[in-house]
Amino acid sequence: MDKAISQEIFIINNLWMMIATALVFIMHLGFATVESGLSRSKNTINILFKNTIIPAIGLITYCLWGFNLMFPGGEYKGMFIGFTGYLGLSVPANGLTSEYASGQYTYWTFFLFQAMFAATAATIVSGAVAERVKIWGFLIHSLILVGVLYPIIGMWTWGGGFLASIGFHDFAGSSIVHSTGGWAALAGVIILGPRIGKYVDGKILPIPGHSMPLATIGVFMLWLGWFGFNGGSVLSADPGKVSLVLVNTSLAAAAGALSAMFTSYFVTKTLDHSLMLNGILGGLVAITAGADLMSPAEAIVIGIIAGFLVVYAILMFDKLKVDDPVGATSVHLVCGIFGTLAVGFFGAKKGPDQLVSQLIGIGCVGGLSFTASIGIFLLIEKTIGLRVSAKEELEGLDIGRHGMKAYNIESSKYD
Amino acid sequence: MDKAISQEIFIINNLWMMIATALVFIMHLGFATVESGLSRSKNTINILFKNTIIPAIGLITYCLWGFNLMFPGGEYKGMFIGFTGYLGLSVPANGLTSEYASGQYTYWTFFLFQAMFAATAATIVSGAVAERVKIWGFLIHSLILVGVLYPIIGMWTWGGGFLASIGFHDFAGSSIVHSTGGWAALAGVIILGPRIGKYVDGKILPIPGHSMPLATIGVFMLWLGWFGFNGGSVLSADPGKVSLVLVNTSLAAAAGALSAMFTSYFVTKTLDHSLMLNGILGGLVAITAGADLMSPAEAIVIGIIAGFLVVYAILMFDKLKVDDPVGATSVHLVCGIFGTLAVGFFGAKKGPDQLVSQLIGIGCVGGLSFTASIGIFLLIEKTIGLRVSAKEELEGLDIGRHGMKAYNIESSKYD
Amino acid sequence: MDKAISQEIFIINNLWMMIATALVFIMHLGFATVESGLSRSKNTINILFKNTIIPAIGLITYCLWGFNLMFPGGEYKGMFIGFTGYLGLSVPANGLTSEYASGQYTYWTFFLFQAMFAATAATIVSGAVAERVKIWGFLIHSLILVGVLYPIIGMWTWGGGFLASIGFHDFAGSSIVHSTGGWAALAGVIILGPRIGKYVDGKILPIPGHSMPLATIGVFMLWLGWFGFNGGSVLSADPGKVSLVLVNTSLAAAAGALSAMFTSYFVTKTLDHSLMLNGILGGLVAITAGADLMSPAEAIVIGIIAGFLVVYAILMFDKLKVDDPVGATSVHLVCGIFGTLAVGFFGAKKGPDQLVSQLIGIGCVGGLSFTASIGIFLLIEKTIGLRVSAKEELEGLDIGRHGMKAYNIESSKYD
Repeated sequence: MDKAISQEIFIINNLWMMIATALVFIMHLGFATVESGLSRSKNTINILFKNTIIPAIGLITYCLWGFNLMFPGGEYKGMFIGFTGYLGLSVPANGLTSEYASGQYTYWTFFLFQAMFAATAATIVSGAVAERVKIWGFLIHSLILVGVLYPIIGMWTWGGGFLASIGFHDFAGSSIVHSTGGWAALAGVIILGPRIGKYVDGKILPIPGHSMPLATIGVFMLWLGWFGFNGGSVLSADPGKVSLVLVNTSLAAAAGALSAMFTSYFVTKTLDHSLMLNGILGGLVAITAGADLMSPAEAIVIGIIAGFLVVYAILMFDKLKVDDPVGATSVHLVCGIFGTLAVGFFGAKKGPDQLVSQLIGIGCVGGLSFTASIGIFLLIEKTIGLRVSAKEELEGLDIGRHGMKAYNIESSKYD
Repeated sequence: MDKAISQEIFIINNLWMMIATALVFIMHLGFATVESGLSRSKNTINILFKNTIIPAIGLITYCLWGFNLMFPGGEYKGMFIGFTGYLGLSVPANGLTSEYASGQYTYWTFFLFQAMFAATAATIVSGAVAERVKIWGFLIHSLILVGVLYPIIGMWTWGGGFLASIGFHDFAGSSIVHSTGGWAALAGVIILGPRIGKYVDGKILPIPGHSMPLATIGVFMLWLGWFGFNGGSVLSADPGKVSLVLVNTSLAAAAGALSAMFTSYFVTKTLDHSLMLNGILGGLVAITAGADLMSPAEAIVIGIIAGFLVVYAILMFDKLKVDDPVGATSVHLVCGIFGTLAVGFFGAKKGPDQLVSQLIGIGCVGGLSFTASIGIFLLIEKTIGLRVSAKEELEGLDIGRHGMKAYNIESSKYD
Repeated sequence: MDKAISQEIFIINNLWMMIATALVFIMHLGFATVESGLSRSKNTINILFKNTIIPAIGLITYCLWGFNLMFPGGEYKGMFIGFTGYLGLSVPANGLTSEYASGQYTYWTFFLFQAMFAATAATIVSGAVAERVKIWGFLIHSLILVGVLYPIIGMWTWGGGFLASIGFHDFAGSSIVHSTGGWAALAGVIILGPRIGKYVDGKILPIPGHSMPLATIGVFMLWLGWFGFNGGSVLSADPGKVSLVLVNTSLAAAAGALSAMFTSYFVTKTLDHSLMLNGILGGLVAITAGADLMSPAEAIVIGIIAGFLVVYAILMFDKLKVDDPVGATSVHLVCGIFGTLAVGFFGAKKGPDQLVSQLIGIGCVGGLSFTASIGIFLLIEKTIGLRVSAKEELEGLDIGRHGMKAYNIESSKYD
């Protein structure tokens, strides 16, 4: 344990990291509800099932090998069920005291915080490929994404790898988490093709989500979870750093909401609720890379740009017939890239050298996630199949795969 | 930084204030879900949209000028994007360290905690004027309420203004937050008039809410958020003070639930779920002014009275043809006034002098919020219009304004 | 106050216990939503009402006498509204400072944390007896369970009673909380008999839940709450202990999900969403007794077994015509017993002596909860009646008892 900090500060830091872990955990409920709310009711269970089982897969694989794959060096080397020695499921030899702390938090705390992050990338894919993907094929890709691709990509920066050495800055993962998921989502959408009935006779037909309350609950849960996602990425309870990060995070989300509201109003002449919600998420994703570097004013500017980008990205993807039911690629890929670039244009590290580092980082993350995901999805398609039958797609995946419907409501239909 | 407390205690206090901020944030989800759950499905998106965009407006306006308007003096003066110098969006000159801390928490933490409070007053109005208000008119009133009225009213007490100097005690805002919103809500309801079909031929027709699960989720989220709303208002992690406040808050909520259950049972002979939920909220609002002064037994008594008041206030407003779809005026105005008065009757400060101070505070808060809101709503009505057309009201605001319905559910309708 | 810890550590410990309290509180929303989601829409308000009013009853009764009944000795004796002197609603004589702290947290914090636990046992019963129980009869049983049976059972171990003296280990209440509720649930189900239409002509007819999104929200809220339920049961913010407990808790939940998924897939050939959700809950219940003693690998094994047990227990209870609509007895009773036994087979205390202690504890808890609940339910049945009329059961308890339906949704029914 680092002797430079007091026992008290160690306990406080660890406490904050544990609470941040709980907040990141609740993001999985956010993803489950926002994605199912923005999809059709006949595929609701399928999405809920995927987004519940993915954190489970993420926790277990991260425990078995992912954690050691992502943080292979230094004091963590081989200290857990892991890559360097994953036959033994042993507790660290030095027991259950705080001795195995890194000075800021315990070994267990660090594991759990990182494990909660790990599943996020795969959860992002879930929404984009929703309503037509075969669940086993999807889960195989998720297993590889969570268990192999994400830890490797994460190691490049957070585990002391080559992106760290060139100065790539991605504070809480605009690229490492969100773009990784976004690129994989784009790969999945390209291989799968659009849903039946989305693009007909050259027209883009709207397929509205089935429950705006559910989608709204999801966005609030994600915003709440981002207090831990970004705030916890300070890796201590440092008052000045964490509180600035939280201010920037919330201001970017708020600016994203207002920006997407006005942008979509000028485009559609309606106050589109789901675009406004995606504006919040876009702002949150975009501030994530540099939440520790920005002033509040810069955070607002980043949020405004992200809200604008989300709306136009959703329109653009639809024109390209890239059918992403929930807008996950626009939120996580487009705003993830933008946010990572923004570190070169705004904040304490801005400058041409930093911009080059950011571009290299964006390219490397995207290169691995996208090409590997294309390969995995193609392999699945050629073997066990990636897309459900047209009959099952029309009937809905809930009946086909889960044996029941998501809703069995007798309503008074009072209006 | 106050030298009387240790670095460790400063970090702990700041941590608790940041967590309390996250809890207050989630109250906005609570308002969104309880208000939409208690309204009709055809106006659901409209409510969700308002209650999502209001916190965004609140955060941005509070950052631009509201914070400095509310806390104009002392060490915060001009230190932020603000009233005394709101052209520059600059980071405080002394950097991003904990130097600008007040001794209990950082400048950023205090800003964000207060900013999360700021939007609450407007969110209260949202429910009361639901199902017939034009959204742009509503948002203009919200902007003024959040950006001008609330910071001024808050400054009178919490910013060291004249109500503070006469000893007015409103711990976490029974009056400053809840009555401010409640008076504005009452103004809106009076100017708007009742919904079509509510009062017909001298009869009061029930218009039940469309989703009791949604309303229940909302009340639990609000109760959870109140841990931060009241607990954070201690402005430190002081163990004795915060834990007593939390005990009082939860006991008042519980007593409000039971009291409203029995009161409504004697009146309606049914176990009315929405009245019981409003009893919880009434108890929470009522304990807010004096949560730091009461014994647990007094908190229970205050909760019992609040639960009783909520039920009768809802009945009374209906008799007066004041049509508040979600009972917001009964909860936030009636119980807010009661809770503020209760500081004169119960707890550590009770007495005739305190009662006079409380009455003055109630009058001043109500005077500004109500008269200004009447004026603003009238002005909106005369210019851009405040109420949607009868056609749009009957069709629902979701289709008219947001271009879609909140629910698109294919249900098995298994019963 | 224990002089061995610093003022800072006391504040941190107290802070964590307060946050854990808020997390345990939100479990009541989890129970309300998971139980209503897994039941039919016509009984939704009834379940929401019960699960909202039970925490209210729990808080008030625990304040009036339950807390002193459960922790009768030592420094807490008679210090609160309580068993040894429950006529006076007085604040402790030594005032509202931290003086009445136990060294880890204040008197108020300990009360509120324990009070949030108290209602849990009764909430478990709610789901099992749903869709046919008379609400007043149910509430009378809940009052006795929360106010008398649970505090007495809790005192045996946590209050320094005879089970503590024989070395019975139940860290956060696999038996004390979950089995207590599970046994009472089983008693209720036996006395009530199955729902109309569940077992017809020797066949078991499925009665699917009405909202999988609601059930999923519930399980995530429960998992989130378990961070406080288990993490708070350390009774301090000890970094090593709390973080290990949280790792074990999450890994057991994840393993339970995967185990139940595969088990139910081999049985039903579908990916049953509600069984997977119950696998998570089973894993959480099972790890609760020994979350402080296990290694992560052992936590995973316990979760796997629990996920398997839940699925087969649900099938078994159905074969025995024990009709539990939400699987509460399988989750809380079966996995509660298993988790308590697991302390004898796994972890730091395993061994034959410990196993004997665990068996005695399981027997004593079950003996009191089950026999007392059988007696109470029988007495209610003979007097005011326990089961609603067949007419009311078919019509739904919402209309019959609460005067409205839970949902009044006009949906586009777009599919």
